[in-house]
Amino acid sequence: MSRFGRATAIERVGDGRYAIDLDAGFAIGAALNGGYLMAVLDRAAVDATPHQHPISTAATFLRVAKAGPAEILVDTRKTGRTAATSRVSLVQNEQVAVEALITTGTLDPAAEPDWAGEPPVPELPPVEKCTGFQPVTEERERGFADRVDMRFDPATMGWLDGQPMGRPELRAWFRLPDGEDADAYALALAVDALPPVALNLGAKGWAPTVELTWHMRAVPAPGPLALHGTGRLLTGGWFDEEVEVWDSAGRLVAQSRQIARVGRGG
Amino acid sequence: MSRFGRATAIERVGDGRYAIDLDAGFAIGAALNGGYLMAVLDRAAVDATPHQHPISTAATFLRVAKAGPAEILVDTRKTGRTAATSRVSLVQNEQVAVEALITTGTLDPAAEPDWAGEPPVPELPPVEKCTGFQPVTEERERGFADRVDMRFDPATMGWLDGQPMGRPELRAWFRLPDGEDADAYALALAVDALPPVALNLGAKGWAPTVELTWHMRAVPAPGPLALHGTGRLLTGGWFDEEVEVWDSAGRLVAQSRQIARVGRGG
Repeated sequence: MSRFGRATAIERVGDGRYAIDLDAGFAIGAALNGGYLMAVLDRAAVDATPHQHPISTAATFLRVAKAGPAEILVDTRKTGRTAATSRVSLVQNEQVAVEALITTGTLDPAAEPDWAGEPPVPELPPVEKCTGFQPVTEERERGFADRVDMRFDPATMGWLDGQPMGRPELRAWFRLPDGEDADAYALALAVDALPPVALNLGAKGWAPTVELTWHMRAVPAPGPLALHGTGRLLTGGWFDEEVEVWDSAGRLVAQSRQIARVGRGG
Repeated sequence: MSRFGRATAIERVGDGRYAIDLDAGFAIGAALNGGYLMAVLDRAAVDATPHQHPISTAATFLRVAKAGPAEILVDTRKTGRTAATSRVSLVQNEQVAVEALITTGTLDPAAEPDWAGEPPVPELPPVEKCTGFQPVTEERERGFADRVDMRFDPATMGWLDGQPMGRPELRAWFRLPDGEDADAYALALAVDALPPVALNLGAKGWAPTVELTWHMRAVPAPGPLALHGTGRLLTGGWFDEEVEVWDSAGRLVAQSRQIARVGRGG
């Protein structure tokens, strides 16, 4: 089993109850990454219903989840021929950390779109012109930076050097490490893998996601995924972030929007 | 009290329990409009928490809700200084029709954006160049068409005459009747008030919303609201619809995305 597969492996321990050992490697600062947590919840929702893909995941982040044991509770509210909807909770230390409404369905990998919009502009530069995470300088784990292979569009990385671009944009190539291809659960990770787009508006520090809804639109082709993050408004401490995920076959495979709080600096 | 206020009035009948008499006027075909139902759930979430606005509403539509009595159950999962999150269910005939995760907060009506994106293009034509619902030809209630005052951009209405524009777009001016100004709950109605954008891709008939998430971004100024509906992909019977709501002061006041099934014709 791949590293990502192991990190998101759930064990069914009862009717609608699953156990998981959350992987410290997906922590960014104090908190486990929201996309990683959604991947885990999506696995449980798919396991508990007769469908194969998490078509719609609406997750609200109530408390920071930390590495270690947690429980997932799945309450399936309706099961239909086309879709099934479940209320899914991640519980740690007897408190709900994440609550989600997840609708599963089954997408045909060979489906051809009836209509598809144009890919976002600007395009991502070729991967060799993009920049990776900081190189390893010590013999230690880098956490999230070792769990995903991301290459960022340099045009969107000025915030790293104190020169935010002035627009809420971030773009990057995304792969799982070791050349593993993305599945539905990797898409959950991908839609929340970019740094907050508000960093390019001068915001600093951790930007806690309050709500994130993402839709799986197609089964991704093998190869790297292109992530296009944008936003529309930063006001009163709230900002939105939209991410589109395009696969190597040039298809929109996932789309998300989150609403988050701007960081308080640091 | 206004007609919209009466139609969405809830009565607290217990701890986290509310009663409502759902208004038949908000039916479109067999089902009550999803935006109307979200307005009702948002009212309950705001009533049950110490905040004034529904910042984030993620609603999953499980069963058709019909006019008449229903119950709303609010289970507040976390109450913080900035936001509070509740699980809110609309129950009718002992079945959950709509389930939502709603985060409330309090927006400052005088807030100036730190950063705002450009208004969508193309612009809506002036209201006098837009078209209303079909005129009243008989002395009878027209239902939803009497509950909202909408004027559609003719460029997006070709589907009505069998000439869909070939892109998933719909644009309209939106007001409550009798000149009443929009509040937070009217925004919930507005984000689901347009006909499905898939009609402009040749889809026909009712397009049931499976999931809709919307965010309130600002307190709307008095006056008409501009609704801009778009979409990115129609595939395998699923399509997405994004709606931005702009107020008369030129500010983005709400944004939504829904995923829905294409109609089966008729």
